[in-house]
Amino acid sequence: MKVGIVGLGLIGGSLALDLRSRGMVVLGVSRQKKTAQIALARGIVDGASDRLDLLSAVEVAFLCTPLRAIASTLKSLVPHLPPEAVVTDVGSVKAPIVEECTPLWRHFVGGHPMAGTAGQGIEAAQSHLFAKAPYVLTPTGATPAVAVEKIAAIAHSLGSTVYCCPPDVHDRAVAWISHLPLMVSAGLIAACSGEGDGEVLDLARKLASSGFRDTSRVGGGNPELGVMVARYNRPALLRSLQQYRQCLDRFIAAIEAEDWLALAGQLELTQQQRSQFLRAPSD
Amino acid sequence: MKVGIVGLGLIGGSLALDLRSRGMVVLGVSRQKKTAQIALARGIVDGASDRLDLLSAVEVAFLCTPLRAIASTLKSLVPHLPPEAVVTDVGSVKAPIVEECTPLWRHFVGGHPMAGTAGQGIEAAQSHLFAKAPYVLTPTGATPAVAVEKIAAIAHSLGSTVYCCPPDVHDRAVAWISHLPLMVSAGLIAACSGEGDGEVLDLARKLASSGFRDTSRVGGGNPELGVMVARYNRPALLRSLQQYRQCLDRFIAAIEAEDWLALAGQLELTQQQRSQFLRAPSD
Repeated sequence: MKVGIVGLGLIGGSLALDLRSRGMVVLGVSRQKKTAQIALARGIVDGASDRLDLLSAVEVAFLCTPLRAIASTLKSLVPHLPPEAVVTDVGSVKAPIVEECTPLWRHFVGGHPMAGTAGQGIEAAQSHLFAKAPYVLTPTGATPAVAVEKIAAIAHSLGSTVYCCPPDVHDRAVAWISHLPLMVSAGLIAACSGEGDGEVLDLARKLASSGFRDTSRVGGGNPELGVMVARYNRPALLRSLQQYRQCLDRFIAAIEAEDWLALAGQLELTQQQRSQFLRAPSD
Repeated sequence: MKVGIVGLGLIGGSLALDLRSRGMVVLGVSRQKKTAQIALARGIVDGASDRLDLLSAVEVAFLCTPLRAIASTLKSLVPHLPPEAVVTDVGSVKAPIVEECTPLWRHFVGGHPMAGTAGQGIEAAQSHLFAKAPYVLTPTGATPAVAVEKIAAIAHSLGSTVYCCPPDVHDRAVAWISHLPLMVSAGLIAACSGEGDGEVLDLARKLASSGFRDTSRVGGGNPELGVMVARYNRPALLRSLQQYRQCLDRFIAAIEAEDWLALAGQLELTQQQRSQFLRAPSD
């Protein structure tokens, strides 16, 4: 099978490595000539170019650009694609992407492989990145079943756990477990940093350890990524943020009222509830 | 030097192990006979009892009970103590403890060794628990310097980094980096678990990974501990929670207004600010 990958960053490059190791012919396109050259020189792809016409004979194309470039990339790619080619993307928000891309290409399947590292770019590409990771596909009623099956088969071959759901279900789910944590965590850093008493702030910085480190991790990440998810997943994220505020207000109310029984009940519940999100053994 | 430890849990037991290995004679007291027997049988202490009169000849006594029992334990211990003995505690909130204990014993020094594991009880005691960890001492104007120096010397001998500050400065600092993260994190779990659409909740649970795991970790911990810190550090925690809400509201406002420049500015700041809290290399 001949596969095209547009965008040779961490995700595109890692996909290329895995698909090539499974015997597919992988053609990579990057806007930057140098990236295409690196991908070729390192054996990440079988062929590479900065031009989309490289993909004129592919069976499947993966759009691995940043969210904002996915639909425009597909628009540019369409004139070069064989009519039966299946196109998918790897964007972390699905409804707006699926809405824009479906009219452009009938065999389009929204996708979200939920894997990553702290690295960026082709240099960070690695084998087996998607093994055991969730891979969500978001077909609509109009998506041809054969297209979904083709991408699902590839995702399975990467060792991913494949889920299928409507785009908005995906977006609401990731708002809870990925985009809300980012804002909650960023708010923590902002609040602590706003302490006006220099002696307290200085000591807080010195005493911060694992509790602060873990709770603040995702809020201290790449700002562009944070803005992008907020921008593309705005309604779901706002809904989650508002419900979060209500929950926080219940904690604050219990502490204000010195209602320790209520606070204990709330914290017993969160202790139990957390394990339902993290079934795999962890801390 | 003869040292007494009241409360043979994770902290008391670990202290005993380290102090004994440094050549001190360590006497341990637990309310529970069985715990005292285990500590003795395992060589954690040189002598053990369920009675406080065991400590009638100690030079230093560590109160390692839960917060609520510290002052009452000191009250019961006072009749047995030699007049020059220095007493310290290991509670995670300092102002209310120092306020209650200082009138009971002139040579009392509030202390907080900031180390721990997920384990509990004498079974979880381990050597070197305090090495490289912060150890905060909170003397008041009335605390004799010789008492502070004695505890600081012991903390240094454990390999800890010793800080000295007024009790309320400690309490406000730990509200920021320890108690606020706990509530912020618990609120996240509560909010996610409140999703009313079963399909979304089910998918969210399946997709939750490292971002959710880290941000929710401290909110899914021991509920008793959460209630205890809220109870003892209530004013500082409420102040932190209110400032946190204001920061969160600024994020929400930017997202509502689609002011992506403002959101980017906020997230660039939190990315920079986080590193000021975590100077040691981490993620």
